[in-house]
Amino acid sequence: MRTIASPEELRRALAPLRQDSIALVPTMGCLHEGHISLIRKAKRLADVVVVSIYVNPLQFGANEDFSRYPRTLAQDAQICADEGVNFIFNPSNLYAASGAQITLTVHSDMSDLLCGAARPGHFDGVATVVNILFNIVQPNIAIFGEKDWQQLAILRRMVADLHIPITIMAAPLVREPSGLAWSSRNRYLSDTERQQALHLYQTLRLMQQLAAAGQSIDTTLEQGRQALATQQITPQYLEIRQQQSLRPSQAKPSSEDRIFIAATIGQTRLIDNMPLLPHPSKINMNTNTENLA
Amino acid sequence: MRTIASPEELRRALAPLRQDSIALVPTMGCLHEGHISLIRKAKRLADVVVVSIYVNPLQFGANEDFSRYPRTLAQDAQICADEGVNFIFNPSNLYAASGAQITLTVHSDMSDLLCGAARPGHFDGVATVVNILFNIVQPNIAIFGEKDWQQLAILRRMVADLHIPITIMAAPLVREPSGLAWSSRNRYLSDTERQQALHLYQTLRLMQQLAAAGQSIDTTLEQGRQALATQQITPQYLEIRQQQSLRPSQAKPSSEDRIFIAATIGQTRLIDNMPLLPHPSKINMNTNTENLA
Repeated sequence: MRTIASPEELRRALAPLRQDSIALVPTMGCLHEGHISLIRKAKRLADVVVVSIYVNPLQFGANEDFSRYPRTLAQDAQICADEGVNFIFNPSNLYAASGAQITLTVHSDMSDLLCGAARPGHFDGVATVVNILFNIVQPNIAIFGEKDWQQLAILRRMVADLHIPITIMAAPLVREPSGLAWSSRNRYLSDTERQQALHLYQTLRLMQQLAAAGQSIDTTLEQGRQALATQQITPQYLEIRQQQSLRPSQAKPSSEDRIFIAATIGQTRLIDNMPLLPHPSKINMNTNTENLA
Repeated sequence: MRTIASPEELRRALAPLRQDSIALVPTMGCLHEGHISLIRKAKRLADVVVVSIYVNPLQFGANEDFSRYPRTLAQDAQICADEGVNFIFNPSNLYAASGAQITLTVHSDMSDLLCGAARPGHFDGVATVVNILFNIVQPNIAIFGEKDWQQLAILRRMVADLHIPITIMAAPLVREPSGLAWSSRNRYLSDTERQQALHLYQTLRLMQQLAAAGQSIDTTLEQGRQALATQQITPQYLEIRQQQSLRPSQAKPSSEDRIFIAATIGQTRLIDNMPLLPHPSKINMNTNTENLA
C-alpha cells in the first residue's frame, strides 16, 4: 500500500493500472466499520482500491466542526493496510490558494431539504470535492454509504447530469451492536449522550413497525415525533420521503418511502435513515450484514 | 467521418482509439473560418479529432437568440469532412428532461464582468456544457478560440480548479479580410450594419496605436469611447484588463493587458478583443495567421 498526497503522483501511479478496474472510496478519514464495509465492497468489485482521506473544507459551514473534525491518519492507514487497500490518497489541499472560482452547485430540488436545508452549501461542497476526486483518480466505480443517503442520491444525479463515466455503488448503513449508526462523530458522544442517541435508531424502528401495521405516513411521523419528545429530543428533521427523488411521500406508505432523521445530541449532529417498509427478510437486519445494492 | 448523436455510441466509437491522442473542438455549429482554424490546430496536435456541434440552451438568457441561432448541420458536416474531422458529435439534448439538478457555477471574480455582467448565468452554462462534453469525449486536449477570451480564461480555470486531466489549447481570433472578427452571428448583419461593425475592429486598432504611442490606460479608453461615439456606437463594454486574471489593468499599459469590447449592432451582439501592446512582429497581423499559443 502507498500513501500519496500529490494528485500528479497518484495519476502517475495509477497510469499503468488502467487496464485493471479501479474503485474509489472517498472518505474524510477517522475510518470505522461503515468505511470498512465500503472498502470490502470495493475489493470485491475492482482490482485496485483507492481510499481518499480528505477533510473537505468546502462542505463545512462557518460554525461547523471543520477544525475539530477527527484526524486519525496513522490508524486509518493501518485499517487500509489490513483491508488490502492499494492506495491512500491524502492530499493536503485540493483548492486554489485564491479560492475555487469554478465549483458545482446542487439545485434546490435536491438540496433545499433534509441535511441541505440545515447546512446551506454543504452539498455544493460535497459535489465539488467528489467531482475533483473523480477527475484525479478516474475510477471505474466509486462507493458511497447509504448512511449519507441524500449525498448518495445527489451524487447519482451528478453522474447522470454531467455524464460522468463512473458507476456509483451504494453500500448499506452499518450499525454498532446497539443499533447506533456508525459515524466518525460518534466519538464526540459522552456515555449519557450515546444512550440518548440510541433513541434515533429506536424511533426509526418504531416507525417501521407502525407503517407495517398499516398506519398512515402522517400518523407514523406524529408517533415518531412523540417518541422522540418523551426522550427530550427535538429532531432537526424527521421526514418520510421517496428515496430516489427525495420528494415528499404520498399519504399511504410504499416500498419507495424512506425515513430520514437528524438531531443534535449534546453538541453532536447525528443522522440516520431507514426504509419505511423494509423487505420482509431484512426487517431484523440491523448490524453488519450487507446487500449488494 | 461519422456523425453521432448518442453519448453512449460516441463513447463506444472512441473506446478502441484511446491509445491515440484525441482532440475535442466544442462548437455550436454554423462553422466559419474561426472554427476551421481550431479544427486545423486539432488535426496538427492529435490523432483523432472530434467536433461537437450543440447549441447549448443553458448558456442563453431568456431574451437571447437561442431559438433563432443559426443551425447549418449539412454545411458544417461538409466542412468537417473536408478538414479531415473523424467524428461530429451532434447530440439532440444533453440535459435531463426534468432539468439539470447539478451544474457548474463560475464565481463572481471571473463571471461578474465583461460578457458575464451582461449575460447572467451565461458562463455557468458554458462551464456546465463543456464539462459534460469533456466527460463524454474524454479528450486529451480541447481547443477554444481566443475570440471568446473570457470563456477561454474561465475554462482554463475550470480545468485547474476541478483537476480535469485535459489540456486546454487556445487558437487566435480569426478576422475576415475587412478586419471584422469571424462570428456565426455575423450573418445576422445587414450590409449597413456590417460597415458599422467594422468600427469595433478599427477602434481596437486605434487603441493599440495610442497605447504604443505612450498614452495611459485611461486616455486610451477615453479615446476609444470617443471614436465609437462618432460612429453612433455605445458599447456594452469597452475595457482594458489583465488578460490572464481578467482583473482591471494598472494605469500604465503592459504586455499583459488586453482590450475587450462588446456592442450591439442593429439587433446583433458582437464581441472582439486584442492585446493592448502586441508583440512588434504581430502588430499588423489581423487575418488568418496563427501562433501556437
